Amino acid sequence: MRLLKELEQKTAMELGEELHRFAANLSLICRSITGDGLRQTLAAIQSRIPLEISEVPTGTQVFDWTVPKEWNIRDAYIKDASGKRIVDFQTCNLHVLNYSTPIHTTMSLRELWPRLFTIPERPEWIPYRTSYYQESWGFCLSHNQMQALVEGEYEVCIDSTLTQGHLTYGECYLAGRSTDEVLISCHICHPSLANDNLSGLTVATELAELLAGRDLRYSYRFLFIPGTIGAITWLSRNCENVRRIRHGLVLTGIGNESGFHYKKSRSGNAEIDKAMAQVLRDSGAAYELLEFSPYGYDERQYCSPGFNLPVGCLMRTVWGTFPEYHTSADNLDFIKPDRLAESLRVCASLVDVLENNRRYRNLSPYCEPQLGKRGLYRSTGDQAIEAEINARLWLLNLSDGEHSLLAIAERSGLSFEMIRDAAEVLRENGLLAPVSELGTNGSLDAAAGNIAEVTSRG
Amino acid sequence: MRLLKELEQKTAMELGEELHRFAANLSLICRSITGDGLRQTLAAIQSRIPLEISEVPTGTQVFDWTVPKEWNIRDAYIKDASGKRIVDFQTCNLHVLNYSTPIHTTMSLRELWPRLFTIPERPEWIPYRTSYYQESWGFCLSHNQMQALVEGEYEVCIDSTLTQGHLTYGECYLAGRSTDEVLISCHICHPSLANDNLSGLTVATELAELLAGRDLRYSYRFLFIPGTIGAITWLSRNCENVRRIRHGLVLTGIGNESGFHYKKSRSGNAEIDKAMAQVLRDSGAAYELLEFSPYGYDERQYCSPGFNLPVGCLMRTVWGTFPEYHTSADNLDFIKPDRLAESLRVCASLVDVLENNRRYRNLSPYCEPQLGKRGLYRSTGDQAIEAEINARLWLLNLSDGEHSLLAIAERSGLSFEMIRDAAEVLRENGLLAPVSELGTNGSLDAAAGNIAEVTSRG
Amino acid sequence: MRLLKELEQKTAMELGEELHRFAANLSLICRSITGDGLRQTLAAIQSRIPLEISEVPTGTQVFDWTVPKEWNIRDAYIKDASGKRIVDFQTCNLHVLNYSTPIHTTMSLRELWPRLFTIPERPEWIPYRTSYYQESWGFCLSHNQMQALVEGEYEVCIDSTLTQGHLTYGECYLAGRSTDEVLISCHICHPSLANDNLSGLTVATELAELLAGRDLRYSYRFLFIPGTIGAITWLSRNCENVRRIRHGLVLTGIGNESGFHYKKSRSGNAEIDKAMAQVLRDSGAAYELLEFSPYGYDERQYCSPGFNLPVGCLMRTVWGTFPEYHTSADNLDFIKPDRLAESLRVCASLVDVLENNRRYRNLSPYCEPQLGKRGLYRSTGDQAIEAEINARLWLLNLSDGEHSLLAIAERSGLSFEMIRDAAEVLRENGLLAPVSELGTNGSLDAAAGNIAEVTSRG
Repeated sequence: MRLLKELEQKTAMELGEELHRFAANLSLICRSITGDGLRQTLAAIQSRIPLEISEVPTGTQVFDWTVPKEWNIRDAYIKDASGKRIVDFQTCNLHVLNYSTPIHTTMSLRELWPRLFTIPERPEWIPYRTSYYQESWGFCLSHNQMQALVEGEYEVCIDSTLTQGHLTYGECYLAGRSTDEVLISCHICHPSLANDNLSGLTVATELAELLAGRDLRYSYRFLFIPGTIGAITWLSRNCENVRRIRHGLVLTGIGNESGFHYKKSRSGNAEIDKAMAQVLRDSGAAYELLEFSPYGYDERQYCSPGFNLPVGCLMRTVWGTFPEYHTSADNLDFIKPDRLAESLRVCASLVDVLENNRRYRNLSPYCEPQLGKRGLYRSTGDQAIEAEINARLWLLNLSDGEHSLLAIAERSGLSFEMIRDAAEVLRENGLLAPVSELGTNGSLDAAAGNIAEVTSRG
Repeated sequence: MRLLKELEQKTAMELGEELHRFAANLSLICRSITGDGLRQTLAAIQSRIPLEISEVPTGTQVFDWTVPKEWNIRDAYIKDASGKRIVDFQTCNLHVLNYSTPIHTTMSLRELWPRLFTIPERPEWIPYRTSYYQESWGFCLSHNQMQALVEGEYEVCIDSTLTQGHLTYGECYLAGRSTDEVLISCHICHPSLANDNLSGLTVATELAELLAGRDLRYSYRFLFIPGTIGAITWLSRNCENVRRIRHGLVLTGIGNESGFHYKKSRSGNAEIDKAMAQVLRDSGAAYELLEFSPYGYDERQYCSPGFNLPVGCLMRTVWGTFPEYHTSADNLDFIKPDRLAESLRVCASLVDVLENNRRYRNLSPYCEPQLGKRGLYRSTGDQAIEAEINARLWLLNLSDGEHSLLAIAERSGLSFEMIRDAAEVLRENGLLAPVSELGTNGSLDAAAGNIAEVTSRG
Repeated sequence: MRLLKELEQKTAMELGEELHRFAANLSLICRSITGDGLRQTLAAIQSRIPLEISEVPTGTQVFDWTVPKEWNIRDAYIKDASGKRIVDFQTCNLHVLNYSTPIHTTMSLRELWPRLFTIPERPEWIPYRTSYYQESWGFCLSHNQMQALVEGEYEVCIDSTLTQGHLTYGECYLAGRSTDEVLISCHICHPSLANDNLSGLTVATELAELLAGRDLRYSYRFLFIPGTIGAITWLSRNCENVRRIRHGLVLTGIGNESGFHYKKSRSGNAEIDKAMAQVLRDSGAAYELLEFSPYGYDERQYCSPGFNLPVGCLMRTVWGTFPEYHTSADNLDFIKPDRLAESLRVCASLVDVLENNRRYRNLSPYCEPQLGKRGLYRSTGDQAIEAEINARLWLLNLSDGEHSLLAIAERSGLSFEMIRDAAEVLRENGLLAPVSELGTNGSLDAAAGNIAEVTSRG
């Protein structure tokens, strides 16, 4: 499988516009960690990929947490004395403090004031604020809007419900030849924010669509879940299965203009970490590798010490470090079609690495085999050899059954693609044989798992 | 125990002046590797802390060495033809080559000349010279003094004794809950030199005074010994007990204006090395970490291959690298009260780390515990989290029973104090439990000892 | 044995001119991978050192390869219409595509054209080209010569034979106290090229001559072989013996003006790699250490995964990276006497390290032994100690039976020579004893082999 090559059939612009369109369709839905916004979002994803949707009742204990009441909202506004809606949920769903309890009353500006959230440094933007676990209500608005408020009475209405209900999440499982899993996780709990929400779920949906129905080495599990409580809920209901996860990736904030940031898993040395480093190096894009830290997205839960899963996180800009973060400026203009396309390609390239990262054995390990007689070498000795021949020499030299293709790419400085292509040519010529990866219970053997160790020895 | 916090009750100046006063009281005593100068110094220390004083007879075999004759001196001078003392031991005890044999005679300048030591590059300073193991005599004087000598006869007198006697050293043992020991060693064999002698013993005495009578995790052993022969003598008489030393520090040259230099133990990877690196980083002072080398102070003996103890050496300027080294310019003006105080604080901070460097187990290891419901998290999601919350997340993530607080501080980049405080808060909230450190024979279990290994895995 | 010291009896110029003379004597022989040129070259070497010459018949299977037909050539030329030799093998043996099949015919310039090889960027130089495994013929000439050719008929003659015969190689084995071997390998298959052929075999011959008849710790095996096919042939006939090779070095391109390049063995961590790094550091010459790669000289075969021998490669400029590479400009002027001498000295210094790289045990491991009473220390304490005393302290500290002299040199930053000299002084004084290296079957014990591991622990 060469997923990246397939994707390169389309231009980045074509691909990116498809992705952007899907994000745009979902941008007006008011999502939260529970409620109908989640269900609508999951339904849209389900229209494209096989998705199993779970509903977990309010009050369910999930480790140290409890599934909260379900929140839904129909309308919200602040009306001035003339009855004009001066803050209106219908124009922007960020206007309400997410998870606000219902209210309908009249109050003075002075009473209302403490319920208003703004960003004084960015007076035109509306902040995104939440209060999931402390019952409260409030409004978010631009600082300019707030400044314009005059003394007087205001009608305040939040037509929401906070009731016994469910937490909803979606799961797309694509069975491969092995029961070992690759986990792709993204959060779907933010309202209209584009980068910090839609970019991740859009790319994940497209990737799942691309993989569905294929013959895969690994099984793939895509999670579309509310952040934190969703990951905790899913983990609490999948404690046994979780050990099948061999590689995992949290996808978020991958639509804006910025180089990539990949935050490593807790061990910092997992195959996903090495694979992602290789993929980003090969991509030609700007990128930075970040050490693991316990703050961030749902890798916090996957990498908690009881699970310690090999899960990293792919972002462009890092949460909290760009001004648009958690504001109305994280909108559809903030995410760019070509960036979405590039992010998808990086994910496809990661799949290519994970699917193809085998170990081989040189069948002619004593001295070099004579490549020339097989047409795999140049004939008249001139000065330099091509990278293709170089890749063959590296593979023959390091294919002692211990080095994976990824380890060979890493050590040779060549791209994974070049190493994989060379492995194919050599295998076709009877010079390399893949090391068996038969395992018990449908699990791959140590082939993949040992890579970290082997590479560091190499 | 939070020793550093206690010390911060006083200003650096108050603290430093106390320290400086004690050094000043000892500065006129003529110390050597044996003799009454040592005994007077030890008596002054004993007036403050419990001190066991040992006397080892001349001729005792200590490994490859032999305890030398005891040296004492009452007076020494060179008188010119007019009978005037032109070099006078009473004005400065450095004037005599330390360990000079007795002499009383008259000689020409020409005969005297080879017995005179000066520093031509520093014509106003008197050098400090010794001849412990080759019987000899001589005078040290400023180059200006020597230049002023005129032809003629001189009366030369050294009223010393070199006889069967003893080598004297002092030992302050503070028993803790464990028989595992922390060793603090300083040399007390130099005459009036302030930095290279008094600074170390002054800080060590103060530290012992601070620790005496407390409930301590470790036992502490403070050695006040003559350099080289004293350490060798002590080691030869404590071969069995020496394996109880879990961490050790040689203290010397810590009074002058200069950043810190910490010379690592022979392994370079001991807990004392990591603790000192963390303490110095947290101190805000300028510092440099030096690799182990076999030349230096008594860490040479503690780190000899037969013992290979985890003993480092804390200095400010390094021996031999500053012009005042081993000269009359290493006097009470050369050591500064605020620097002595800062050095004591660094030592106190080291004790804080060693005493508190436990491993914990996250009692809620599956996903993050819900800190919010315990008031340990912020409620409304804004951009950054405080370092305090960050410290809690790091602790929860890495408290798998393998990482010590020191390893967590190291990996997180946070201060040890912040990590320790967070551990306390989490323990109080039932989220962390210390790993048991019950051991056999009063020894701590591997908790502390494994840190080096665990950190490098981490 | 102190081979480097002996060589320093002669000036670099004297030594270098001897070496250059030997190279000059061999420069007119037309060598190839088989044939009489090889035999003449080996005969010249055999006149100086004991050399066992092997002849392997055409058609012999050697791993994946087959020994080719033997090639010999008497004459070759291109004559113009006037009968004048315009390209003449007698003036330069590079003029013929090496391994050309015989031909004698007349042809137009147009027909001849595709058979001509030149270097357009270097119009005065003749390229060196080969066609060993594809039967072909051709001429190499300067681009200027080719440009001067006019339309017309040319008489073309290559008076060569390509027949059943033999591949020839030479082997000089110097038995040492142990059957463990040091392998020195150089290729002797290039015609008149000086740096890329003669420099290596010249230095190797001189080194073998220097070592012959000595009492050696290791046995030494010098291989004078055609590149690639020669190494493969030798390996295929020595599969069992090959495991005796403890250290190996390919020598090539060591005569020109340039700093050294040492390419590490496949493991990158073998004793030969550490020894060469130390030798080059100590030499004062400019040098660079290169990571292993599977392209290059015969280390490709020695380091193939089935053998994985600890063999590195010493060069000055790296193959293919200098314009003279594989051209007529790689001639006797390109290699410099002083550079040949320096290369020989580096090899001698390597032998010194390998022969002397023992592990010792400090016989007085508890505290420092009293060096002063043995006259091995200074008496009056002044500021710095000499490097000689420093070397003694390092040796005493690290001679725990695990650290080799090489590891101690590496860690102390002192030269190997200084460490070795200090070891000798301390051994003479009864302070150090060599760790026994008795092994089974004439093999050294783990002394040498463990160094890589021990150093990385140290």
